[in-house]
Amino acid sequence: MIRARVSILPKRTVFDPQGEAVRHALGHFGLSGVERVRVGKEIELEIPGEGDPAEIRSRLETIARDFLANPVVEEYELHIEGLP
Amino acid sequence: MIRARVSILPKRTVFDPQGEAVRHALGHFGLSGVERVRVGKEIELEIPGEGDPAEIRSRLETIARDFLANPVVEEYELHIEGLP
Repeated sequence: MIRARVSILPKRTVFDPQGEAVRHALGHFGLSGVERVRVGKEIELEIPGEGDPAEIRSRLETIARDFLANPVVEEYELHIEGLP
Repeated sequence: MIRARVSILPKRTVFDPQGEAVRHALGHFGLSGVERVRVGKEIELEIPGEGDPAEIRSRLETIARDFLANPVVEEYELHIEGLP
């Protein structure tokens, strides 16, 4: 089984109201001093391990770039476990 | 500047309707063969680097465990960059 993790965050240049809300909430709970917070998505995909590793990697890249992340306002990282 | 990443996913034992929705959508786009999808949150925190590293690490652990993740139905990973 191959496990891929796609970590998606708003680009630094984009205002992140969710992140600001979390930062303020932490301050209310006495956990001040957090300068910046960005809130995004973490998506884990499990794919059978059969097939050509290069083809699997390219399919996962397509899924991350074209379906899961919005390249206009988001950036993403793709981490793959179990692929030779 | 210290940068911490908190990756939060639903526990494997919890049904994840969002994950199922993503899996079905990928199938509709011809990207079938994905056996399982889990959808969660990725939160990045930026904190000034001054202070005792152990105290900073413990504060980040508290933020992740007690404020950002729901330990009943979620699991989390905490990755910290820039802390000696």
